[in-house]
Amino acid sequence: MRRAADFGVHIGQLPSGPSNSMADIDGLRFGEVTLSDGAVQTGITVIHPAPGNMFESKCVASAHVINGFGKSVGLIQLTELGELETPIVLTNTLSVGTASTALVRHMLEANPAIGASTGTVNPLVMECNDGAWLNDIRGLHVTEAHVAEALGQNLSQCPQGATGAGTGMSCYGLKGGIGSASRLCSMSDQTFTLAALTLCNMGQLPDLLVDGRKVGQEIDALEKQERLGKNSGKELGSIIILLATDAPLSSRQLNRLCVRAGAGLARTGTHLGSGSGDVVLAFSTANRKAHDTPSNPVLSRSSLHEGAMDQLFRATVEATEEAILNALFVSKTTQGKEGRHRTGLADWWDRL
Amino acid sequence: MRRAADFGVHIGQLPSGPSNSMADIDGLRFGEVTLSDGAVQTGITVIHPAPGNMFESKCVASAHVINGFGKSVGLIQLTELGELETPIVLTNTLSVGTASTALVRHMLEANPAIGASTGTVNPLVMECNDGAWLNDIRGLHVTEAHVAEALGQNLSQCPQGATGAGTGMSCYGLKGGIGSASRLCSMSDQTFTLAALTLCNMGQLPDLLVDGRKVGQEIDALEKQERLGKNSGKELGSIIILLATDAPLSSRQLNRLCVRAGAGLARTGTHLGSGSGDVVLAFSTANRKAHDTPSNPVLSRSSLHEGAMDQLFRATVEATEEAILNALFVSKTTQGKEGRHRTGLADWWDRL
Amino acid sequence: MRRAADFGVHIGQLPSGPSNSMADIDGLRFGEVTLSDGAVQTGITVIHPAPGNMFESKCVASAHVINGFGKSVGLIQLTELGELETPIVLTNTLSVGTASTALVRHMLEANPAIGASTGTVNPLVMECNDGAWLNDIRGLHVTEAHVAEALGQNLSQCPQGATGAGTGMSCYGLKGGIGSASRLCSMSDQTFTLAALTLCNMGQLPDLLVDGRKVGQEIDALEKQERLGKNSGKELGSIIILLATDAPLSSRQLNRLCVRAGAGLARTGTHLGSGSGDVVLAFSTANRKAHDTPSNPVLSRSSLHEGAMDQLFRATVEATEEAILNALFVSKTTQGKEGRHRTGLADWWDRL
Amino acid sequence: MRRAADFGVHIGQLPSGPSNSMADIDGLRFGEVTLSDGAVQTGITVIHPAPGNMFESKCVASAHVINGFGKSVGLIQLTELGELETPIVLTNTLSVGTASTALVRHMLEANPAIGASTGTVNPLVMECNDGAWLNDIRGLHVTEAHVAEALGQNLSQCPQGATGAGTGMSCYGLKGGIGSASRLCSMSDQTFTLAALTLCNMGQLPDLLVDGRKVGQEIDALEKQERLGKNSGKELGSIIILLATDAPLSSRQLNRLCVRAGAGLARTGTHLGSGSGDVVLAFSTANRKAHDTPSNPVLSRSSLHEGAMDQLFRATVEATEEAILNALFVSKTTQGKEGRHRTGLADWWDRL
Repeated sequence: MRRAADFGVHIGQLPSGPSNSMADIDGLRFGEVTLSDGAVQTGITVIHPAPGNMFESKCVASAHVINGFGKSVGLIQLTELGELETPIVLTNTLSVGTASTALVRHMLEANPAIGASTGTVNPLVMECNDGAWLNDIRGLHVTEAHVAEALGQNLSQCPQGATGAGTGMSCYGLKGGIGSASRLCSMSDQTFTLAALTLCNMGQLPDLLVDGRKVGQEIDALEKQERLGKNSGKELGSIIILLATDAPLSSRQLNRLCVRAGAGLARTGTHLGSGSGDVVLAFSTANRKAHDTPSNPVLSRSSLHEGAMDQLFRATVEATEEAILNALFVSKTTQGKEGRHRTGLADWWDRL
Repeated sequence: MRRAADFGVHIGQLPSGPSNSMADIDGLRFGEVTLSDGAVQTGITVIHPAPGNMFESKCVASAHVINGFGKSVGLIQLTELGELETPIVLTNTLSVGTASTALVRHMLEANPAIGASTGTVNPLVMECNDGAWLNDIRGLHVTEAHVAEALGQNLSQCPQGATGAGTGMSCYGLKGGIGSASRLCSMSDQTFTLAALTLCNMGQLPDLLVDGRKVGQEIDALEKQERLGKNSGKELGSIIILLATDAPLSSRQLNRLCVRAGAGLARTGTHLGSGSGDVVLAFSTANRKAHDTPSNPVLSRSSLHEGAMDQLFRATVEATEEAILNALFVSKTTQGKEGRHRTGLADWWDRL
Repeated sequence: MRRAADFGVHIGQLPSGPSNSMADIDGLRFGEVTLSDGAVQTGITVIHPAPGNMFESKCVASAHVINGFGKSVGLIQLTELGELETPIVLTNTLSVGTASTALVRHMLEANPAIGASTGTVNPLVMECNDGAWLNDIRGLHVTEAHVAEALGQNLSQCPQGATGAGTGMSCYGLKGGIGSASRLCSMSDQTFTLAALTLCNMGQLPDLLVDGRKVGQEIDALEKQERLGKNSGKELGSIIILLATDAPLSSRQLNRLCVRAGAGLARTGTHLGSGSGDVVLAFSTANRKAHDTPSNPVLSRSSLHEGAMDQLFRATVEATEEAILNALFVSKTTQGKEGRHRTGLADWWDRL
Repeated sequence: MRRAADFGVHIGQLPSGPSNSMADIDGLRFGEVTLSDGAVQTGITVIHPAPGNMFESKCVASAHVINGFGKSVGLIQLTELGELETPIVLTNTLSVGTASTALVRHMLEANPAIGASTGTVNPLVMECNDGAWLNDIRGLHVTEAHVAEALGQNLSQCPQGATGAGTGMSCYGLKGGIGSASRLCSMSDQTFTLAALTLCNMGQLPDLLVDGRKVGQEIDALEKQERLGKNSGKELGSIIILLATDAPLSSRQLNRLCVRAGAGLARTGTHLGSGSGDVVLAFSTANRKAHDTPSNPVLSRSSLHEGAMDQLFRATVEATEEAILNALFVSKTTQGKEGRHRTGLADWWDRL
């Protein structure tokens, strides 16, 4: 897996964590199921935000909608309560319902109290539309069994590239998919990690910037000569940006991170097209929140002073920009429905 | 069907439409499937907001979350674009995924362009938790076939009571369900209709107010004597409030209506409990919006001057309060899981 | 001072604090300057949220706009950072600029670092329009000296009635002004106080409800007979609702309180007119936030489990409704510009 | 006045209007007063959005807060009603109150109905903190007379550089100020103009990007050698972004533009520091809104189909990025309080 740094592209100034991915957040785990066969180019990616039963011990969280042409579910309750109580499932737009039901079943099995002696559960499913180019999205090929399989995995390595939910995605007219990156923030004698994972499916080729370089225009010029592909004129894409940190942030502070992810996204060149569902979700693995109300409801929690946020903001912008570039560099050229294909950025890079 | 007015309860001062329900909005149609058998007390209610293909010809719309402990889907895109492009499906909380998938299939069948030559579709599904008392919500008894059946109906009469999605709901410790009411607003030489439809599942008995009268406390006193039921101490409920109008409102103006629905809700006594998902959706049947961009994208539309909003605000507060009371008066006493029951308000009324 | 309870009106079920006003919050202080002379009927009311230098040691805070036809200043930064760093100044709509400048001067004097070695200060000024009936608001009669005088006071008793900023206000066609109420919430072995202070200037007479009773219609009937006054047909009013608590709430949780204040407001009968600026601000005196970033930015703070919020929600609804009624009962009949007057509710009460 | 294009920097692909500034919007006028004398480096800039009486005939408008460490006033009502009813005044942070009062007086003089036979007026004043480096902001040097003078002007040319409100601003450690740019969007047989005007006071030197080039790091390297200045470590700045268009957009659509301005801002390199008040305001000069409610409140208005928004989004990103660069290129090296200075980008450019 060759990523941006392997191609000489280095974003920003803060140091990365050991894997330079969301796997640098302690306890985070992944799952994925890839459906790649002819016109079927889609899949499921799961992020387990933290160890243990997420419903019994929730994560502080927040979300921000940059552009709302999207169908993610679970954000209303997450925003009201500032908490995340399930794994995060990524998939294609029209499979959100199926993924949601499968995630509900997964939670019901592990939590007999849900819907019986306590309230319901808030499944979190996010999506991009892989049907705009490569995947037969009308076929609704993702089943509950696929989702259950992905939910059952506990991979310690962060999936990247045209795999899982990223299988059929397109990004800047190239092959899109999943990318990730991380940054370390040192404060006093502590070091916190901030990581981004992006499901990239947005943008038009001529707009692509790689660390400020107009790479999209360079490729566009070559592509026109060679007639190797075709760019749809309109943006029908989307991007999901997940941010994870072990810093003890409140939901309000996590929301401030989400806004900065938009700056990292903008650096890659998009003008946030009308038809693009650009949604950010952030969570912290510190200060887990118990589902049950304790007899004494006054708790003690750690909290980061607002004056220390700037470093985390910088980390967010850098990690998001690099995660998107990593998605482009790692995702391999893919064939999909109706003979269409998308070329991986890596296949172009040496010719620029 | 005896409603609030039939019990001598008259809310506000504006006149009602002919049916005093959402059916007073021209072109609006309904569908419902009721699952009522022992521990299974749930169902589906469908609102077809306007005639014709909703995807090709959308309705201007807006939404407002009063309290976000809820799992409705479709609100992100509806808010961004100010439009509604599918029928509205109401069901129980854990069946949202299934209803969403069924609604997607319904839209795919009618629109071959979705996911092929155009983008995806934004299904709108809203919910309350009927599992807190009467329904075996963990059983996930709603199937895609049930949803498809309800979507296929075109009833001209507005469903009310413990039927469809309202089958298993509880409200103020009594039997909840669906209620509706309408108001007429005359301006210059025109008359616009504003209608509310509420799926009622919130509140605790002692808080219930009926046009200002502390009916909840009265019933609570009687109930304690007779030990006829039991109220859960905590609010695990929800309310969905739909507002429809034929006035030519923008999405911003519809949002202002949504906020006023909260005032109608408050008049019935609730303090908007932490665990209650209280969500409002408003749409107008005027100024339908074409999916396809016309060659000349500058359109002419009718629009209501802001100075005329006050009458619609008053109509919203009145119709919402009355719709909730109608839900209580119409919903009949129901038995559900584990021998539990909820008594209809009508059964108490004569004894107060 | 005879308040709602003195007239036999008792709202809700939770117990009140010793003074049943915002003075029940430990350390809270007040100031006010009243300008009442012929056509000049206006003033300033100041709330010092907590002891000590508010800029150096801020309060956690949040705000919620119910209807935004209002000109309060300071809410953008308060919302972003979840904190309040000045006293709160209430005045008439067109004096907000003057009050803002005076508050800035007040803060500059006490804090040499502002605008020099640190950033600027965020003055919080909120308002209602007393010019719709009694006050010559176009005269801009409030001066910086008046504001400075009010800021310099440290009254331990909560001002109520047609005094300070409440001097020229109208409410439900009657004399409006300032009212306050408090509630006690017991949890485990602790008791928290929740208090509301309302500057009341909204509503039309026929809509007034007093604990569910249609008092506005009763007075309207009498008033029509006697031609004692006149009600403007349109709502040009506003209400400012302040909530204070010593419970250790986050800004997100305080925001949830703000939403419930809207339910208390709705119980008094208004439909939230288009021209009414209805704004809620909530703050907690627990967990003061230091302006300067400490060398170790990870702090320890107390926090209330979400499961304990319902009692505070109930307290908010009750205290807000009662504060508004207190404003009506306490505010005395007042003469203003052009011979206009507003009658106090107390003057009507015995005749109903 | 040499702007970005004069230094060979060309942003994006859409054509500019004749003046490549906000003056390209028909009917828009400006005013400014500059206070530049030793430690006093501040001023006022006024934008008259459209001809005629803005209170009688308002502009459709929207606003978006990117980061809320700011003190702009007027946004609550502007957002609720989607309209702008006064000129826009830009100044320093602590002069907002004075500017607000002066703007109120300006509106009262022209509109005898305000505060008498109709409601109040919503003054719109936006700000950045010039006290962080060059200006003695604690001195409160802006008077009502200065503001009145600027309001009385009707300049047809768009002010740019270190003038008016831009006099004392700093941006990316260089001299900041005001910049502007415009783009033309052709649709069917019409051409719409989109213009940005930015008051630039944010960012740290090493972060500055000029069309993707890391110019900030280049200057930083030179500056360190020469010790010509000093950059504060922390971001205490802000940016105000104004967007104007003659396209017939709704307030919702204008809000979508505002979000894209954030992408243009991000391209210049900032990570949106915690202490930066980054606020966007957009208005359309089409579809002016009458203050008085007509006897028939149903109006006819033009409206742009959502499918035509993408070009306006691209125009917004390009114009915003270029306006910021123009502010940097045009603003001349300035001396301020305590012997401090800020160097204009133009003075560095030839040495890079």
